Amino acid sequence: MYRQLRSSKRAFSTAKDVACELAASSIRFGVGVTKEVGMDLKDMKCKNVVVFTDPYLKKLPVVKVVMDSLAQNGITAHLYDQVRVEPNEHSFKHAIEYMTNHPAKIDAVVGVGGGSVLDTAKIANLYSMYPPEDFYDYVNPPIGKGKPVPGALLPFIAIPTTAGTGSETTGVAIFDDTRHKAKTGVANRRLKPTLGIVDPDNTATLPPNVAKYSGFDVLCHSIESYTALPFTERPMPASPTLRPAYQGSNPISDIWSLHALQQTTKYLRRAVADPSDVEARSAMILASTSAGIGFGNAGVHLCHGMSYPIAAQIRSYVPPGYDCDHPMVPHGHSVVVTAPAVFRFTGSADPERHMTCAKTLAWGTDRVSKYEQMSQAAIKEGAGDILADEILRFMDSLDVPLGLEPLGYTKNDVPMLVKGTLPQHRVTKLSPRPAGEEELTAMFEEAMSYN
Amino acid sequence: MYRQLRSSKRAFSTAKDVACELAASSIRFGVGVTKEVGMDLKDMKCKNVVVFTDPYLKKLPVVKVVMDSLAQNGITAHLYDQVRVEPNEHSFKHAIEYMTNHPAKIDAVVGVGGGSVLDTAKIANLYSMYPPEDFYDYVNPPIGKGKPVPGALLPFIAIPTTAGTGSETTGVAIFDDTRHKAKTGVANRRLKPTLGIVDPDNTATLPPNVAKYSGFDVLCHSIESYTALPFTERPMPASPTLRPAYQGSNPISDIWSLHALQQTTKYLRRAVADPSDVEARSAMILASTSAGIGFGNAGVHLCHGMSYPIAAQIRSYVPPGYDCDHPMVPHGHSVVVTAPAVFRFTGSADPERHMTCAKTLAWGTDRVSKYEQMSQAAIKEGAGDILADEILRFMDSLDVPLGLEPLGYTKNDVPMLVKGTLPQHRVTKLSPRPAGEEELTAMFEEAMSYN
Repeated sequence: MYRQLRSSKRAFSTAKDVACELAASSIRFGVGVTKEVGMDLKDMKCKNVVVFTDPYLKKLPVVKVVMDSLAQNGITAHLYDQVRVEPNEHSFKHAIEYMTNHPAKIDAVVGVGGGSVLDTAKIANLYSMYPPEDFYDYVNPPIGKGKPVPGALLPFIAIPTTAGTGSETTGVAIFDDTRHKAKTGVANRRLKPTLGIVDPDNTATLPPNVAKYSGFDVLCHSIESYTALPFTERPMPASPTLRPAYQGSNPISDIWSLHALQQTTKYLRRAVADPSDVEARSAMILASTSAGIGFGNAGVHLCHGMSYPIAAQIRSYVPPGYDCDHPMVPHGHSVVVTAPAVFRFTGSADPERHMTCAKTLAWGTDRVSKYEQMSQAAIKEGAGDILADEILRFMDSLDVPLGLEPLGYTKNDVPMLVKGTLPQHRVTKLSPRPAGEEELTAMFEEAMSYN
Repeated sequence: MYRQLRSSKRAFSTAKDVACELAASSIRFGVGVTKEVGMDLKDMKCKNVVVFTDPYLKKLPVVKVVMDSLAQNGITAHLYDQVRVEPNEHSFKHAIEYMTNHPAKIDAVVGVGGGSVLDTAKIANLYSMYPPEDFYDYVNPPIGKGKPVPGALLPFIAIPTTAGTGSETTGVAIFDDTRHKAKTGVANRRLKPTLGIVDPDNTATLPPNVAKYSGFDVLCHSIESYTALPFTERPMPASPTLRPAYQGSNPISDIWSLHALQQTTKYLRRAVADPSDVEARSAMILASTSAGIGFGNAGVHLCHGMSYPIAAQIRSYVPPGYDCDHPMVPHGHSVVVTAPAVFRFTGSADPERHMTCAKTLAWGTDRVSKYEQMSQAAIKEGAGDILADEILRFMDSLDVPLGLEPLGYTKNDVPMLVKGTLPQHRVTKLSPRPAGEEELTAMFEEAMSYN
């Protein structure tokens, strides 16, 4: 278990932290619960609500269900349908201006969509309530100043339409920072939604490739948070309020992360293969929420840190099965593509945890009993490799291209990719094994092609 | 899985509920975190705080740690140390009067203790903020009127000193109602603590028998909530706010309940045998919190419903190893004593879930592989019996007297015990198999002696 559990004396004699904290949004789960949103807002005495969504989702039934529910409960809904998929600082500013200059007195925010929509709603809520002097004031350091959020925000109900982001439970909002050519974001517990409405009906129309790559985001959220630096290895904060949302792996987030990994192993293939499989779809949207609570309290590390430059520097790749007119890589794809290299590298930091993830991924195969019979020495030696192989197998079973080359990258891009990863302190510092320029270079090189 | 996950059409065509909701207190966990309480309250701008505890705990280090932390942060602490262990309406009223008539402007409440202390603090907070016309207005029906809580309460930080109640995460407060000779309580989400500070240091001085019976409370919280009526079998509420805290078993509470059961199986014996085993003690206090989140959202059923008259009607039993001068039965004992009879009865309602609990309890023994190989027909036939036997084995391994006779009850008491159980609708209606007078009589008779 965790170091601080051995002796309280020892914990006090170091400058390491002793505590972890679970702070989760309330979550309501059920088929068809989206239609309750109007009643919730009426109970909160709300009258004018901004509903955030994107131009594609606007045409789908889920937005109509939300708008009807608001109307039936006497709430005026103001629809903002201009959210950019993979938002950047410009699209964020557009949404902020909409909220700031709105003629009505807005008293709550609703987000209906994937991570892009929910993150945009969080930012618009924060920046219109407490306008900063400079856009980068709230943005994570070192790109921004990471200033704390001064007070409570408007109530925010998040209604996810993908099973991947977990944004309905976290205080994180991510964007492509075109100015610094990096992905970064704002992270603060106050951004957490008041309520997440998790309704399997809302993922029924997900294109299979979207369901697939969202699922790989869940996979990485769960493995990264479970293998993240333990909370007892982080420095002790001066006050409990200064404890970051990303606290490192801990016995509470472990429960959520491992559960999400189990469910993803069991249900992702079914959910992708057959969108009418309600059981699999329900399990996946709930796995996404579970992983969100897990990594929302523990954090993610290298796969996410390395994914940001991969996404930001994409030149020509257009993903099959996405309704998209510009080169991009799906977030879940950009994250999982380095995962085999990452966990091969981090394995030695905590072989047992890497083995637990490998066994979970190998669920239902002969390999599990083989893994169970391994000696402690063999685990210590091989856990990272075994987890890497299991992830590659899982990717392959879902036809994910195995490496950065299929995305158009070559070895010449590695220095740029490393340079784009180094500023991602907030996540990379949670790697259980320190990774500097040299280590990142080796991981990107390995990730070029796994064949 | 759950019925509503099969088809949303079907869910809409019945009057059954479709949703479950996770609403948990924030939880901070770590060895030594109790000393942070003053910083938390300072951050909330609190100046005058009432600290609830009992006369026994008052002498222990934990209360001093809390008082020192408050003083160091410039907060005036008003100590109420008169909480009655196993509180009743009179002791509740005493605590309410203390809060109501306090000369200082109280702006937060802290509870340091077991379930009795935390529940008393919840009640004093509610009744002093929103005094009802009659004491029974907020009390659960049918004994009370079950009126809703009108608004938010003062911030409440709960610091448990036992690993059992889970009260630091729930909106429930229980008392012995001497007027109606029953155990009942108040249940509302607004009673949930703002923050639970879960510190393994605070259970270091638990007498072994207190650790033991608190652990059996955790065991029953987890098995009862995991086997409770599924949330999709409850009636659909008119509005989401009318959805009760006890919603029936659901895929979110399942995670917590099963985790708590696993940990209790693994660590309770170690924690009882050796109070210096910090790892076991840490695992048990966190298991207690996990089970609290599980049953706090799913509910408990027959063991808890039947425990109330068992506790209320005790005549001569004085538990060994308790610092107690009047006849009483430890809460965890009163709950687990009927568990074998209860789960033998409920097994047929969901054999698979009962089998999962049995396998978890049999963890690490040869019986697990025997159970794994059972046919579906054998599981359907025998799951309840197998779970009952596993619980008896677990009780026996910790020297728990097996039945009601050792507590001084005879068959002549059964009608009184049944009469005392029948009004416990709030919990008994969550039994996965309906239990009326006849069924309860049979269960109490079986529970007299298991030898």
